[in-house]
Amino acid sequence: MKNYIKHDPWLIIEEGFKPEYNRISESIFSLGNGRMGQRATFEEDYSGDTHQGSYVAGVYYPDKTRVGWWKNGYPEYFAKVLNAPAWIDIKIKINGTTLDLAKASVANFKRVLDMQHGILTRSFEATVADGKKVSVVSTRFCSMADGEVGAIRYQIKPLNFDASFDILLPVDADVVNKDSNYDEKFWTEVSKYADEKKAIVVAETRKTFFHVATGITYKVNVGGLEVGKASSPILKEKYAAIPVQVNAKQGETLSIEKFAVVLSSENHKKESIARICEDKLAFVREAGYDKLENAHRSNWKQRWEGADITIDGDVAAQQGIRFNIFQLMQTYTGEDERLNIGPKGFTGEKYGGSTYWDTEAYCLPFYLGTADQKVARNLLVYRYKQLQKAIENAAKLGFTNGAALYPMVTMNGEECHNEWEITFEEIHRNGAIAYAIFDYIRYTGEENYLTEYGLEVLIAISRFWSQRVNWSADKQKYVMLGVTGPNEYENNVNNNWYTNLMATWTLEYTQYAIAYVKQQDKAKYEALSSKIKFNETEETKRWADIREKMYFPFDETKEVFLQQDGFLDKELLTVNQLKKEDRPINQKWSWDRILRSCFIKQADVLQGIYFLEDRFSFDEIKRNFDFYEPMTVHESSLSPCVHVILASVLGYKEKAYEMYLRTSRLDLDDYNNDTEDGCHITSMAGTWMSVIKGFGGMRVKDGKLYFNPFLPDQWNAYSFRVEFRGRVIGVNVSREQTDIKVIAGEPLEIIIGQEKELA
Amino acid sequence: MKNYIKHDPWLIIEEGFKPEYNRISESIFSLGNGRMGQRATFEEDYSGDTHQGSYVAGVYYPDKTRVGWWKNGYPEYFAKVLNAPAWIDIKIKINGTTLDLAKASVANFKRVLDMQHGILTRSFEATVADGKKVSVVSTRFCSMADGEVGAIRYQIKPLNFDASFDILLPVDADVVNKDSNYDEKFWTEVSKYADEKKAIVVAETRKTFFHVATGITYKVNVGGLEVGKASSPILKEKYAAIPVQVNAKQGETLSIEKFAVVLSSENHKKESIARICEDKLAFVREAGYDKLENAHRSNWKQRWEGADITIDGDVAAQQGIRFNIFQLMQTYTGEDERLNIGPKGFTGEKYGGSTYWDTEAYCLPFYLGTADQKVARNLLVYRYKQLQKAIENAAKLGFTNGAALYPMVTMNGEECHNEWEITFEEIHRNGAIAYAIFDYIRYTGEENYLTEYGLEVLIAISRFWSQRVNWSADKQKYVMLGVTGPNEYENNVNNNWYTNLMATWTLEYTQYAIAYVKQQDKAKYEALSSKIKFNETEETKRWADIREKMYFPFDETKEVFLQQDGFLDKELLTVNQLKKEDRPINQKWSWDRILRSCFIKQADVLQGIYFLEDRFSFDEIKRNFDFYEPMTVHESSLSPCVHVILASVLGYKEKAYEMYLRTSRLDLDDYNNDTEDGCHITSMAGTWMSVIKGFGGMRVKDGKLYFNPFLPDQWNAYSFRVEFRGRVIGVNVSREQTDIKVIAGEPLEIIIGQEKELA
Repeated sequence: MKNYIKHDPWLIIEEGFKPEYNRISESIFSLGNGRMGQRATFEEDYSGDTHQGSYVAGVYYPDKTRVGWWKNGYPEYFAKVLNAPAWIDIKIKINGTTLDLAKASVANFKRVLDMQHGILTRSFEATVADGKKVSVVSTRFCSMADGEVGAIRYQIKPLNFDASFDILLPVDADVVNKDSNYDEKFWTEVSKYADEKKAIVVAETRKTFFHVATGITYKVNVGGLEVGKASSPILKEKYAAIPVQVNAKQGETLSIEKFAVVLSSENHKKESIARICEDKLAFVREAGYDKLENAHRSNWKQRWEGADITIDGDVAAQQGIRFNIFQLMQTYTGEDERLNIGPKGFTGEKYGGSTYWDTEAYCLPFYLGTADQKVARNLLVYRYKQLQKAIENAAKLGFTNGAALYPMVTMNGEECHNEWEITFEEIHRNGAIAYAIFDYIRYTGEENYLTEYGLEVLIAISRFWSQRVNWSADKQKYVMLGVTGPNEYENNVNNNWYTNLMATWTLEYTQYAIAYVKQQDKAKYEALSSKIKFNETEETKRWADIREKMYFPFDETKEVFLQQDGFLDKELLTVNQLKKEDRPINQKWSWDRILRSCFIKQADVLQGIYFLEDRFSFDEIKRNFDFYEPMTVHESSLSPCVHVILASVLGYKEKAYEMYLRTSRLDLDDYNNDTEDGCHITSMAGTWMSVIKGFGGMRVKDGKLYFNPFLPDQWNAYSFRVEFRGRVIGVNVSREQTDIKVIAGEPLEIIIGQEKELA
Repeated sequence: MKNYIKHDPWLIIEEGFKPEYNRISESIFSLGNGRMGQRATFEEDYSGDTHQGSYVAGVYYPDKTRVGWWKNGYPEYFAKVLNAPAWIDIKIKINGTTLDLAKASVANFKRVLDMQHGILTRSFEATVADGKKVSVVSTRFCSMADGEVGAIRYQIKPLNFDASFDILLPVDADVVNKDSNYDEKFWTEVSKYADEKKAIVVAETRKTFFHVATGITYKVNVGGLEVGKASSPILKEKYAAIPVQVNAKQGETLSIEKFAVVLSSENHKKESIARICEDKLAFVREAGYDKLENAHRSNWKQRWEGADITIDGDVAAQQGIRFNIFQLMQTYTGEDERLNIGPKGFTGEKYGGSTYWDTEAYCLPFYLGTADQKVARNLLVYRYKQLQKAIENAAKLGFTNGAALYPMVTMNGEECHNEWEITFEEIHRNGAIAYAIFDYIRYTGEENYLTEYGLEVLIAISRFWSQRVNWSADKQKYVMLGVTGPNEYENNVNNNWYTNLMATWTLEYTQYAIAYVKQQDKAKYEALSSKIKFNETEETKRWADIREKMYFPFDETKEVFLQQDGFLDKELLTVNQLKKEDRPINQKWSWDRILRSCFIKQADVLQGIYFLEDRFSFDEIKRNFDFYEPMTVHESSLSPCVHVILASVLGYKEKAYEMYLRTSRLDLDDYNNDTEDGCHITSMAGTWMSVIKGFGGMRVKDGKLYFNPFLPDQWNAYSFRVEFRGRVIGVNVSREQTDIKVIAGEPLEIIIGQEKELA
């Protein structure tokens, strides 16, 4: 855990130059707008430790997998988020000497991320080799108002000399991925163009053939007057740059504005992408930095209106929650149904893939609560559009009749993970994808989603469950063998309670959906039925049988659901019996020791209770929480939030707050020592849920909105807003009172303070 | 399955040139002598499909592992058998044209492996581009009389022209491994020397720093007279070659004798290895081809005396069994306790590692029965010498107090396999290593082995089992969680019956061994006890408790031992319910389908019954065999032999013979379509056991030798010899009679024809 980020309600602040934390800061101070993103690397040269990272949504590369021993059914590739052509570079020579903070003497270094407006500012004074000193202030943003635009204002002032600056403004597509095998490069050049005002490189990804046009243009001013002399552009393979020479007297501020336009062939025709880029460059240059920034600022203002959470009495907590919300809004705007939420967003390359079950299980509620419902809807449609690939994926493993197994990790619907115990066995992801449909409809009331998209997905998933279980003659029950539950510290177990639960729940909900669609739009139902060759009578008969006779491991003595068969054969220890030097066990213990231990990585039985809370009594929740939480090491960033929510239900205020602390400043304080790889974007939605569903106790049941808030002892007050069915609901909880009201939209009945009934 | 090898009792014959089968033939016709080995590649150039392979025992390279996701406890490297410097090449230009069977027109091609004498002969006629025709006969061997010597006699005759031959005789250390990552090379040059008579290259392996000196010398004769003119040797990086020019008139036979000396720094000091090589080259050149071959032949004659099995009435079976015995004798001679038996011997590179549990579980009985007992003893001492590394291996996984986990795959005692479900979980290998000590002593009567080596290994393994089990409060039994049994079509199961059995058996046998050693040599016992800090009272108390309270899954209804917890939850099908297109399932099914199915790769419960047969009644064996065998797909080459033996016990003659057929000609007929990678050496010992323990019914019990032979209906008669405690026992079984007698050595009581008693 680090503690170098200054606490502030709206700003993320790093003071002083800390090269050893540079990669961490590059992740934390990242910018993004849903379409493109940029780590907080420097504009000028930097020969120190850095991870240059620029990303374009949806652009990936299927790299060769590395496996010890090939297993039938493994995917052929491991998809990587691609490091995209770099557009931020502003390379500066000061009277012939390169400005490089690894070589200069640096003072008053400060990095500030203004989360309210999505603007990164960096300022410092640098003394280069021969004693010449400059001060620099750079601000930049990836425009929320136009996702294809980025802008930088880089102000440099010679403090003790008359300067002659050689400025180089490149577009560089000759970039590498951090984790490529043997440093292979994934981009080839399609075309490039440069003149004295602009430079454009169109690059193509190998194998996937995405085209990305990256164009830059600029203005150089002193005291509001355009200055500087551009010389002939420099053109190299995958590279174009404009050299500009300009002088500035001591004390004069030179302002370099660099504008970038980043276009993907996902959104533009390949044949016209270079021309569109050129046109758009002219447009942004004409608009200028201030106008672009203003549009960007007001867009952020609007977004925060619906999404902000205030915490009074704890600045660190306030900063933490806003950082989580800020990163989520930067990562996914919901405008494009082909996109999704990568575990690192635009802040790094790790976990190469884009979409995990995190989206459905952890992120959906955030977007439901803070954005127009079409944003969450697009996350659902994303999976709908990938249904055929999920069917192919299941077929590859031997399933038939249109059964779908959604991938564990994917870019385009194809599986791209390659550990058998995850890829083939962590099938509960299918349950979360079905559950998200229910969750969306429960929240929005848009039941028609079933008719339009939902039912087809549900039937395909139900078909999978139906084939994935088998009849145990021994137990006289249906069983589900060889699975990995949410707790990935167990592999290849039988009858994971959570998976069995989500499977039967899916079958039940699908049955409901069939009835609903049939009644709403019989023609549509029949068309679907015929398209997917659905034998309703036969198939639903088996589903009903499975629901009736599914086996759920349960211990009669302890009266708890068992995580899986044989769980009670383990030595049952609690986390507080572990020595400090054994933590985190995933770094300290051998894998086989972890597997055999009772320790739980993240909510598993409790994940099921969280999802289907209504079905469990207070006592059931309590018994299972009391049994499992003490064995849970929370070594997944996705674990604490579920425990905050259930601890809140149980009135375990201290436990809820303890869990909340683990999630809210995870990256800001680099808890897990891995923020340098990028931020934990998907778990940030869990932080949001911790406040809204945990402390705030928000639930939706039978179309009605419930709150049951409490105030952590450590805070004076907190407030948040949620969007719900066309309204904005404001929640203010203070020591004195709880104030919940409709801020915008029609009146609404809200049920407040209803405790979970005691069974 | 292929069928191109001609049937013959003593010869392996390939007639006609079959480039498409060339790699298969290169494996089948391989030569070896325990110290070095050579695939049956051609002496002259060959530009067609080939896998050049030359190997030196004990010389390996620790290559980088490839894993998808690293797990704590994984080994850093994957050991590879190294392709060693090539010594067989005799490159020939005929009047300027290279002799290359891929380019010449080839007639009367024949490859013959004389298994009785270990000699490979290849003959052909080749017409090169301009119509010039030669006949060639090459013979070669790796000397059994001197493991560091190889020799070739290459006779070439111009049939329709007066020839001018340019002959090149190289040593080439610039070789690649078939499976290296990105074609990395593993040898560097230490030194080289060549003159007109000899060439020597000393090469060093990267990382492991083995030195191998490979020297060649030669004679060229026509009609017994030395001819030919050598010119200056050619020296390149890692390469030395002698060019020889010689003329031969039409019809004259030119005889090129090439002799090789291959020395390893495992057996010679690095500083003198080049000189020793030079001396030895002079010696072999002086001896000449005929003398070397004669010494080699008589050595083979002697080996066959003790080891041959004759089968009357089935030439294919006769050839098959001899091929198995031949390859085993080529692979391991037992003279060096640092060596062991690689799954492919000297016939290929696959499964990179050298030693698996195959050695103890399948190979030991062969060497016990066919060679001096020191040969088998050396296999045991090999593990003893690696005990410290096995202790380190266990410590790496979290075990303490001198517990040993022997590696799954090893070259030098270190683990070099990297799949968690095997490396960490297929721990039953420890049981086989303990069992081999018992098996050796049972057979030889050399109980003192316990005192000298055995006990220390047994205690270390018992300590492992003792820590590897845990107390199940639920079952009130000791359980063993997270293991992979011999049936690798199951992973990470709980309470594998076989593993639990071998664990408690080890604890029991260790207890016996302690008592034995204590009584025989109290001082030695106390010295050991103090060296390994053995707390006899405490430790054996726990062991006794574990033995008493170990859990063994058992089904009361079917009265069978259960392969593991939950086995009866599977859909219980039999192999004959599988469609033909589903076989072999390891090629046709996804891994998760295999894991969930009931189908068994190789004997698992039955492996335990085979090992500890005396403890089970006829009915128990029958019930378990009848239950498990029909579910067994035998997709491991190690599976059929155990089933032959148990089927024989049960009087299932047809089943026994069916299983025997699967193992005896596995490579000769390329059953599994993988002989091109090398032969299945370790399973060949299983073939031998099938005859001796299966059809022959040989057992040793309480120091007495038992036979209970039957004759498969397909045969007229069979005979074999076994060595037993200083005697040679001859067994002849024919339709008319069974004749079992002591051929050499003291008289011995032999019990014949005792059936397994019916419980």
